[in-house]
Amino acid sequence: MVTHDYKEASAIARKRRAASIAAFYKTPTWNEEDLPKNLTEFALSSGYYTDAELAIVQTEADAILENIKTRKWTALEVAQTFCKASALAQELTNCVTEVLYPEAMERARYLDEYLARTGQTIGPLHGLPISLKDCLVTAPHPSSNGMACFANEPMQKDALLVSILRDLGAVFYVKTNVPVAMMMGETNNNVWGETRNPLHKHLSPGGSSGGEGAIIAFKASPLGVGTDIGGSIRIPSAWCHLYGLKPSFGRYPTYGGKPGIAGQEYILAVNGPMSRSLKSLQLYSEAVLSEQVAPWEHDHKCVPIPWRKSVIQPPGRKLRLGLVGLDDGLVTCHPPVERALNITKAALERQGHEVVPWPTEDHEAIVKNLQAAFFDLGGAAIMDLVKPYNEPIFPSMQGYAIAAQAGESELGPTKMRLMNMRRNELQKAYLDRWNASATDEKPRIDGIIQAVSPWAAPRLGETQRSGLYGGYTGVWNFLDFASCTFPVTVADKNLDKARDLTTFNPLSDIDRRIQADYDADFYHGAPVALQIVGRRLEEEKVLEMCEVIDNCLKTR
Amino acid sequence: MVTHDYKEASAIARKRRAASIAAFYKTPTWNEEDLPKNLTEFALSSGYYTDAELAIVQTEADAILENIKTRKWTALEVAQTFCKASALAQELTNCVTEVLYPEAMERARYLDEYLARTGQTIGPLHGLPISLKDCLVTAPHPSSNGMACFANEPMQKDALLVSILRDLGAVFYVKTNVPVAMMMGETNNNVWGETRNPLHKHLSPGGSSGGEGAIIAFKASPLGVGTDIGGSIRIPSAWCHLYGLKPSFGRYPTYGGKPGIAGQEYILAVNGPMSRSLKSLQLYSEAVLSEQVAPWEHDHKCVPIPWRKSVIQPPGRKLRLGLVGLDDGLVTCHPPVERALNITKAALERQGHEVVPWPTEDHEAIVKNLQAAFFDLGGAAIMDLVKPYNEPIFPSMQGYAIAAQAGESELGPTKMRLMNMRRNELQKAYLDRWNASATDEKPRIDGIIQAVSPWAAPRLGETQRSGLYGGYTGVWNFLDFASCTFPVTVADKNLDKARDLTTFNPLSDIDRRIQADYDADFYHGAPVALQIVGRRLEEEKVLEMCEVIDNCLKTR
Repeated sequence: MVTHDYKEASAIARKRRAASIAAFYKTPTWNEEDLPKNLTEFALSSGYYTDAELAIVQTEADAILENIKTRKWTALEVAQTFCKASALAQELTNCVTEVLYPEAMERARYLDEYLARTGQTIGPLHGLPISLKDCLVTAPHPSSNGMACFANEPMQKDALLVSILRDLGAVFYVKTNVPVAMMMGETNNNVWGETRNPLHKHLSPGGSSGGEGAIIAFKASPLGVGTDIGGSIRIPSAWCHLYGLKPSFGRYPTYGGKPGIAGQEYILAVNGPMSRSLKSLQLYSEAVLSEQVAPWEHDHKCVPIPWRKSVIQPPGRKLRLGLVGLDDGLVTCHPPVERALNITKAALERQGHEVVPWPTEDHEAIVKNLQAAFFDLGGAAIMDLVKPYNEPIFPSMQGYAIAAQAGESELGPTKMRLMNMRRNELQKAYLDRWNASATDEKPRIDGIIQAVSPWAAPRLGETQRSGLYGGYTGVWNFLDFASCTFPVTVADKNLDKARDLTTFNPLSDIDRRIQADYDADFYHGAPVALQIVGRRLEEEKVLEMCEVIDNCLKTR
Repeated sequence: MVTHDYKEASAIARKRRAASIAAFYKTPTWNEEDLPKNLTEFALSSGYYTDAELAIVQTEADAILENIKTRKWTALEVAQTFCKASALAQELTNCVTEVLYPEAMERARYLDEYLARTGQTIGPLHGLPISLKDCLVTAPHPSSNGMACFANEPMQKDALLVSILRDLGAVFYVKTNVPVAMMMGETNNNVWGETRNPLHKHLSPGGSSGGEGAIIAFKASPLGVGTDIGGSIRIPSAWCHLYGLKPSFGRYPTYGGKPGIAGQEYILAVNGPMSRSLKSLQLYSEAVLSEQVAPWEHDHKCVPIPWRKSVIQPPGRKLRLGLVGLDDGLVTCHPPVERALNITKAALERQGHEVVPWPTEDHEAIVKNLQAAFFDLGGAAIMDLVKPYNEPIFPSMQGYAIAAQAGESELGPTKMRLMNMRRNELQKAYLDRWNASATDEKPRIDGIIQAVSPWAAPRLGETQRSGLYGGYTGVWNFLDFASCTFPVTVADKNLDKARDLTTFNPLSDIDRRIQADYDADFYHGAPVALQIVGRRLEEEKVLEMCEVIDNCLKTR
């Protein structure tokens, strides 16, 4: 289909999506004003699901696997239920891009037949429906990456991770929405439009893995895979109240995914799991990074480190954690996020863990280098793709347009080398600073707790107005550290009063705009999550620390 | 010392070197015509050394360590002996840059005192003299990297590897020569001049770690550290008949070394050990990559994989090895190298190992991409350093001058991204091809044997005349695979007859020139070594495979 008009490309893609869903499910429609804020709760009580389906969508990944293995449920009924759920999730949040129902059902039938015939599961993910961010290629479906040029282009070959997950038993049923080139903090683009947050319909689910955030929070997916180059797993995970793991580069196979800025390697994109349950991230990681799967045998960028268990030794020892306060030197978090930091600190200390303030004096340099790099290295890459289709440029992406306009003649190898050297020095200095947290009496800190974004979850479109601030997450991409989000609380208008802006001293223009956006009444009920950060290639430790924190939060 | 004249900078540096040596040792001088081809043998029988010194310089690293530990030798006498040996190595081969004798002796005295006081060695390398390639920074000594601009610049901070080795007990006594910016296959520059091969004085010791090759082959160092971005450990190791390990990037700490092209990351430089004994490489690796040292805690680019033992399982199983034949599709090796390939194949097969032909259809694309990248990404970097000093440009470095002249305006992010994408595809395709070597009956190959260069070791300056061909080694840098050299034989005028050039069908211009350079009489006695290549981060396996091959060669 040859078109160079984004509207036409969008119409074709949306028509395909609608037809693919309609071939299987007729979803109810409601007047927008009749819909409550919380679409997830609404859907579960709407009568759309049977009781059996309700049980399935509300079950976490580990129990789904167990129920299929023990033949309490068939893989087919599980797949059909999540397909049906995704149809409603699409209707209510606009989170879906490509629809894979026929192959999901075919695969589920095969798995059921396999289990019946052999008495064995095909692998540790036998029958588990997994939703995939649009960029994780499932041929022949297009991977639009939120751009008209790719919206209707059939893909040739599955991403390596997709092949691995399928071999492990996963069932793919749906691809999910992303912002343009996956380079915004909210999920909106000129092909599929805007995705909203099912936990609070006036809020953004975040981005760039925002379709994943929405479909999982909607309970239309037990486990999804996102990607992250500046916060794209953690921002939607936080805003949708999920656990989302951003690993270090080279830990999970990335080969064959469709990149946002192809060939850009100053800062490296990674993929990782997102879920409502921490246990799901662990079982996913254990499956994908097993000695048997050995992704490093097939992805030349993967490091040969199988998934390790119980890396925190001795088991049960107390943690020593750094805590970034209510700002990072550039932007101040909203009151609900500040409260989440306090809750978490108190919960940890109550259980005997040590929480020490973690300074951020080097974050400004890191954030500025990162932001400049995205624009300088991604400007032409993105504009060359969207311009031929006359795609309007979203406000938070103007930096790319400006950089593309400026041209690349000053951005040759010398400039690139200087950028790399500067990045490397900042990385090394951060590692040294972390090491220096050890004292005569105490070991260095185990990890760092920080907010994921200044907002609990912002109103839709707010990052276009106030400006996208990804400094809380991007700093860890720059350092290639592992990080996982965890839900803490929800915004409460009675507890989270707006700061007095007449005395608030903004750290920057964007700080002032973001702080001015806070409205205790409007944001009431917004999900609040934080992140726990480990060092490079410490994914296991990050999930184990997350479990410790989680337990503290649950017993507080 | 402010000078912008390379001759003046060179004079200052050479004077410093001469004075530093003369303060300790007066080396004999000989008329060049009285020196035989083999300078190592000459030195050992020249009367320069006492019997005790002769015993020390001819002892390998593991036995030196044992003799110091058991107090048969003091660290001081060992250090003094190698200092003295290095003075003669410098006189006869011009392999030394910076002289560290005072600190070597002070350190050795401290180690002796430590052992006497505590009864313990300070670490697994207690008292071992290690020679260092010029770029491995030992502050405050300059690291010239073969360029006038750096020749007299004091350095501020030791390379991380240097600190680690010192903490493990190593004694540093000398830095060794390199070519300009470490980007030639022979060791020559406008500061220190040309280094020659102690095993055959008319031959090159190779480069860029050519000073290391020479000093170790001269038995004036038991173990040295080189660096490799296109063959710079393996070429001098091969031409000096040594074992030299080029690891994958991230395995050994590289932070704080002085790079040849700072900030260039399309292809990554690594460092690794060189020695006359394979066992020395193993003990070095085990020491540097132990859990205790954990270099990944201090180098943000290191991967947390401690050194593993006995990775070939079950122990003693037969290997399945690919063998690259007498050419790689671009250049044909000289007859002595072809014989070494045949010897090795036969020796392996005699012991029941399988050797299969390994095709090189993708090597041409790899070599061309690599060579273009060096010039495009390194042109301005190197020319900006050498031009202010009016340094003459060596013929094999003209590509850098041409690239610098062309400017960088066409080499922006878009070009860089395309280069990265192409490199990544070639890397992935190679891994797939390797995986596809498995058959229904047989596992995939364990490793690949290839020549290290077309020459056994070329006559001095030959790579300037025929042209530098680094395709046999550079292909493995491009793929980031681990590789180790091993000595096989020496050129023999009776066995290695020149090919008939009237019927020889050259694969390329450089192939024709290199083949025309072969002269059985001249090259008689030249060392011939090959390399065994493993996959990325398979350093342990590479050394274990090397041991298997070595044993086969020894029992043939």
